[in-house]
Amino acid sequence: MNTIASASAVRKVHVPLGERAYDIMIGPGLIARAGSEIASRIKGRKAAVITDEHVAPLYLDALKASLDAAGIASADVVLPAGEKTKSFEHLINVCDKVLEARVERNDYVIALGGGVIGDLSGFAAGIVRRGVRFVQVPTSLLSQVDSSVGGKTGINSRHGKNLIGVFHQPDLVLADTDVLNSLSEREFRAGYAEVAKYGLIDKPDFFAWLENNWQAVFAGGSARIEAIAVSCQAKADVVVADERENGQRALLNLGHTFGHALEAATAYDSSRLVHGEGVSIGMVLAHEFSARMNLASPDDARRVEAHLKAVGLPTRMSEIPGTLPPAEMLMDAIAQDKKVKGGKLTFILTRGIGRSFVADDVPASEVISFLKEKHP
Amino acid sequence: MNTIASASAVRKVHVPLGERAYDIMIGPGLIARAGSEIASRIKGRKAAVITDEHVAPLYLDALKASLDAAGIASADVVLPAGEKTKSFEHLINVCDKVLEARVERNDYVIALGGGVIGDLSGFAAGIVRRGVRFVQVPTSLLSQVDSSVGGKTGINSRHGKNLIGVFHQPDLVLADTDVLNSLSEREFRAGYAEVAKYGLIDKPDFFAWLENNWQAVFAGGSARIEAIAVSCQAKADVVVADERENGQRALLNLGHTFGHALEAATAYDSSRLVHGEGVSIGMVLAHEFSARMNLASPDDARRVEAHLKAVGLPTRMSEIPGTLPPAEMLMDAIAQDKKVKGGKLTFILTRGIGRSFVADDVPASEVISFLKEKHP
Repeated sequence: MNTIASASAVRKVHVPLGERAYDIMIGPGLIARAGSEIASRIKGRKAAVITDEHVAPLYLDALKASLDAAGIASADVVLPAGEKTKSFEHLINVCDKVLEARVERNDYVIALGGGVIGDLSGFAAGIVRRGVRFVQVPTSLLSQVDSSVGGKTGINSRHGKNLIGVFHQPDLVLADTDVLNSLSEREFRAGYAEVAKYGLIDKPDFFAWLENNWQAVFAGGSARIEAIAVSCQAKADVVVADERENGQRALLNLGHTFGHALEAATAYDSSRLVHGEGVSIGMVLAHEFSARMNLASPDDARRVEAHLKAVGLPTRMSEIPGTLPPAEMLMDAIAQDKKVKGGKLTFILTRGIGRSFVADDVPASEVISFLKEKHP
Repeated sequence: MNTIASASAVRKVHVPLGERAYDIMIGPGLIARAGSEIASRIKGRKAAVITDEHVAPLYLDALKASLDAAGIASADVVLPAGEKTKSFEHLINVCDKVLEARVERNDYVIALGGGVIGDLSGFAAGIVRRGVRFVQVPTSLLSQVDSSVGGKTGINSRHGKNLIGVFHQPDLVLADTDVLNSLSEREFRAGYAEVAKYGLIDKPDFFAWLENNWQAVFAGGSARIEAIAVSCQAKADVVVADERENGQRALLNLGHTFGHALEAATAYDSSRLVHGEGVSIGMVLAHEFSARMNLASPDDARRVEAHLKAVGLPTRMSEIPGTLPPAEMLMDAIAQDKKVKGGKLTFILTRGIGRSFVADDVPASEVISFLKEKHP
């Protein structure tokens, strides 16, 4: 009974990337059904499950039992949690374990965890035997709506984040919405910033729906599944149009230029700021900056801020605990993230809610004056 | 005058891989012209040149001068020569240097060297910023006709050779035939084994042409350029039909199953056996085994052996200096290279010269009896 009820609640988003096409399944009970979902789609019967020490105690046994029941032999690797795990050191270890598990080209690496585990495992899956199959089981809202869609994988270098990696599309994504109940409020809200982002990029109706239904999304159930499905579909649409990020895929960075600068300015200290919080503040700044450039109405910026505030996300730089470096240093961080060519920057700006666009001629001088105003 | 004469002698092989299409230029004087050849095709103006300590003193200055003259800024990395360089340790170093040189997605990594340098540099080019441009300047006959065509890149793992890597097609290959004059006879011959292979796979006329013209190929000049161009075209045809090796690309392994087993049996000691020599013996064995299986005439095997012997390549296991392990151990090495399923192996066999095919049901018992006969 339970299984039938669960199955019917599951939404499917198809990502039509030709011979790299795949499905994203979204709904309750998917970890318990992972083995059969995988076995019905992928030929191999060997898996290496990559996870971290926070997620392993919660879901690893259930996932392995489900694989076992479907006749899939699995090895597992439990890594330290956190951004530092996205290193060559851990990549080498994971590749070695995947080879030890005799995973062949039709077998798979399964990422059970958030963005860090997904990025690292996807990279390993992309390079072992020049590419084995890859299954994502994202366990945070952020990874369900963002990092598990699109095929970007990678690790960090001393020169910057995500500078080493490959595009390697998953063969299947299983976004089990039950696992979101174990997230803290703060983690859930941080992921929600990316959900709101899809409305702000080009889905004004979805943004309006979120304004009216966010409590239901936070509460769980069908509204949550709907919000995740719309988000995955939105990201999939952008990725299909521009898989390797030559143009429009940059829209996904709405709010991220300011956000990344704030993350760098707080030294990626998650006690002060997590990625989604930086994106929340960054999206408000992007709307305010667009208004200042006379591209959009200030009312839109106010509306964006009101909604993000309502769900409990920070919307102002002043809300970040501790002291922020001066505006000039934030500008340096932006200039490192985005190349400055002849005093001009590429930025995601907007003409209003759901009307964002890639601007490649934003004067750096305007950005710095704006930052000084916002953070005197 | 010189430039015009050189330019007219240059052959071009186009590899039509859609948006990954590229040209292979083959002929004299290409290192001196590298800067302009690259600048006319690729947008970026920054390069990281990867080479080894044997090749650097011969060609690095000339290449860098040519880049400089074309307005391309270049950094360089000189690595130890030899197979051991295909390691994670050197990969990390190369990635770091490429990032330090501020190579962006439209800039390039240039591989100046043989197969080891090409495989390692191509892998780095494939993963830095999830893929930057890649230019190959192969300096051995083997890398000009084999490893620089097809996009396979990678490093070795303690679990085996080439187990970690990506498919990353070059944007341009510059096969400067002048550099082949600096190769030893033994190195040139080893590369020639792969040239002959293309005739044996599916170009009987080319094999006959080689029988009549091999002295001219060894002497240099237009026959050599012709042989390299036909080889690159042959490999390109196979790669275009099966870029990611799901089927027919396996034909390129003619002679390689036995050859790899012999390389493993001699612990990759190049004083005893180099890759091309293993392939030479392996091709004779593949033809003899095919005759034994009543697929081809023994006359074909004799003809293959006569030609490879004429150019000075080894054709018999007994020619390998030192003691070989017993046939059973050679069989173990083959079984590790190729998976054995239900006592059956996949092997490249032949119905005669230029009529090779992928056989996926070769009884392991037949292979072992054959090996015992050949190596009692």
